[in-house]
Amino acid sequence: MSQPGTSVLPAGRQGRIARVRAAMEESGIEAMLLSLGADLPWLTGYQAMPLERLTVLVVPADADAVLLVPELEAPRVDPDPAVFEVRPWAEGEDPVAAAARIVGSRRRLAVSDRMWSTFLLALQEALPSREWGTSSRVTGPLRAVKDREEVEALAAASAGADRVAAALLGGEVALVGRSERQVSEDLGRRLIAEGHDRVDFAIVGSGPNSASPHHEPGTRVIGPGEAVVCDFGGTMAGYCSDITRTVFTGEPSPEMVELYALLQEAQAAAVAAATVGTPCEEVDRVARERIAAGGYGAAFIHRTGHGIGMEGHEDPYIVAGNAQPLVAGHAFSVEPGIYLAGRYGARIEDIVVATDAGPRPLNLASHDLTVVG
Amino acid sequence: MSQPGTSVLPAGRQGRIARVRAAMEESGIEAMLLSLGADLPWLTGYQAMPLERLTVLVVPADADAVLLVPELEAPRVDPDPAVFEVRPWAEGEDPVAAAARIVGSRRRLAVSDRMWSTFLLALQEALPSREWGTSSRVTGPLRAVKDREEVEALAAASAGADRVAAALLGGEVALVGRSERQVSEDLGRRLIAEGHDRVDFAIVGSGPNSASPHHEPGTRVIGPGEAVVCDFGGTMAGYCSDITRTVFTGEPSPEMVELYALLQEAQAAAVAAATVGTPCEEVDRVARERIAAGGYGAAFIHRTGHGIGMEGHEDPYIVAGNAQPLVAGHAFSVEPGIYLAGRYGARIEDIVVATDAGPRPLNLASHDLTVVG
Repeated sequence: MSQPGTSVLPAGRQGRIARVRAAMEESGIEAMLLSLGADLPWLTGYQAMPLERLTVLVVPADADAVLLVPELEAPRVDPDPAVFEVRPWAEGEDPVAAAARIVGSRRRLAVSDRMWSTFLLALQEALPSREWGTSSRVTGPLRAVKDREEVEALAAASAGADRVAAALLGGEVALVGRSERQVSEDLGRRLIAEGHDRVDFAIVGSGPNSASPHHEPGTRVIGPGEAVVCDFGGTMAGYCSDITRTVFTGEPSPEMVELYALLQEAQAAAVAAATVGTPCEEVDRVARERIAAGGYGAAFIHRTGHGIGMEGHEDPYIVAGNAQPLVAGHAFSVEPGIYLAGRYGARIEDIVVATDAGPRPLNLASHDLTVVG
Repeated sequence: MSQPGTSVLPAGRQGRIARVRAAMEESGIEAMLLSLGADLPWLTGYQAMPLERLTVLVVPADADAVLLVPELEAPRVDPDPAVFEVRPWAEGEDPVAAAARIVGSRRRLAVSDRMWSTFLLALQEALPSREWGTSSRVTGPLRAVKDREEVEALAAASAGADRVAAALLGGEVALVGRSERQVSEDLGRRLIAEGHDRVDFAIVGSGPNSASPHHEPGTRVIGPGEAVVCDFGGTMAGYCSDITRTVFTGEPSPEMVELYALLQEAQAAAVAAATVGTPCEEVDRVARERIAAGGYGAAFIHRTGHGIGMEGHEDPYIVAGNAQPLVAGHAFSVEPGIYLAGRYGARIEDIVVATDAGPRPLNLASHDLTVVG
């Protein structure tokens, strides 16, 4: 049944749209309008181009789904009549009016979380007096639970990222004397060489920049004796990777050693806590409590993790306030960090899948404190 | 005055926000909320990360602009107090509520065209009974007119793309025997080698796929005697490139030769028509009329062009119905195409700037019919 290169099996798609319709029924959503983001490719295998010509799949709860697609992009669509009808629109036609006609008198509507506001505003004008929400309320919980093929796709992407991490930890990626940006480009090239279709990000934060969690790699030249946070990922066959390792360019100070050991312990404890049935916020609490107990509570300034799948960040979020219990098939990052602003920081991140046999880390690259050249 | 590596000069930014405020006044917009897309970097030099944590610049018409940014991304911001105040928000805080407080009682609001719908819906809930529009109504006409530094940035990006096109036309990019996808990756690598920071797209459509304007390069192996449409571009120092050349892998048929000559003539005529004062739709009409006169009117299934700048597609659109006259500094593509579905197609695209001295093409790679190996 498996088609090489196709991440979403047609059979899988039919099951998905059936589950989506059931969830729409349950939540009273009468029609969904899916454009940018992963809901559309998850259901149809087709990804909308992020351009000013609208691509939208209209999914009425009680009628067939219709994909409105610009005529000049229609040949890219791989039709799947069991799931959706393809309706190309020509230059000069109004796709918003066409979508509104399909929606008809349905009142409770949901749009892709990432649909451009320009399209939502046009739809709101064409369809006045409706209730609008985001499609993730319907699809988020469904997409969060990965099936076997999806877990394997995530595992393959993580394995590719692991090989890049192994090169970093093994000293194959030169650091000292190169700019953060050069190292970032190097990591990106390696992700592609290891089978990724696209690099989504490659953060390299050295020295004081290692204390900036989403640092933009720049012209700073990496020196000896520094912490270097490398957080990189991309997309392979439609599924994302995301890994962070922190390395040291020379013997770390006793403070760095202590901080890193604390982080390592907190990350491992959070992974171990990620068992089926555990609330997401509990995994966050475990990491946070360990880091706070070590005296660095104020230096852990972000949540512990995010779900991952066809989007780099998606449900479930591993964050205080998310009481949702983990279920088998949930895939997410576990990535605590400690950041001493202006000085240095460190982060360790793995992708983990909750399974009935316990948490399964998809990243296996070493967490040991590593000194590289 | 010029700072290497900085595409938006602080002085330029102050002028820009002043022009934005004047345009808001004129159109009655009381506050703008800028997130994803180019409005934000055009005004501040800062680009929002496309993630679920909201970054938004609130620009009241009558008060100082405030950049709400996730705390963990705040170190990436290069502050410019003359233009905006930076207000980081911590995990657990609600950035939508913070934005709503800044908006206050202002009623007529505009959001970035590309703001995710999830944020617009949350803002609409936090700010009921307001009028919502898109920021491009204010910024589009301003951003469309490039200043001298911007034209030079576009020219530099186009020159980089031209060098890749020259390699393609010169037979340095192997085609026959490779898959479209391999050629696409090759073109992408060359864009990076020629100074681009990012590849935005590299369409390679061969044989029948050359008749699909937005073809997704796939596993099809390019054969001899085929038309190959290569349309590629990326971003260099914040500004975009976009070029298309069609090459032939072997002597083209007499029909192909005739079709290509017609396309070449139509493209050149449209470029020549792109003088200051000419309505955008007239440039489109010129290309369309020539192609129709040659008997291929129905095979030119898209508009003639789009504006280009910090976004790959922006104002002004070179399309029927856009009566806006070209002004000096407008930068846009001129890219007619002829597509015989299921058989083959061709497109020629250059970026052109309207100047008081006439149309200035930024792409100079040859348009001659080129047979490569």
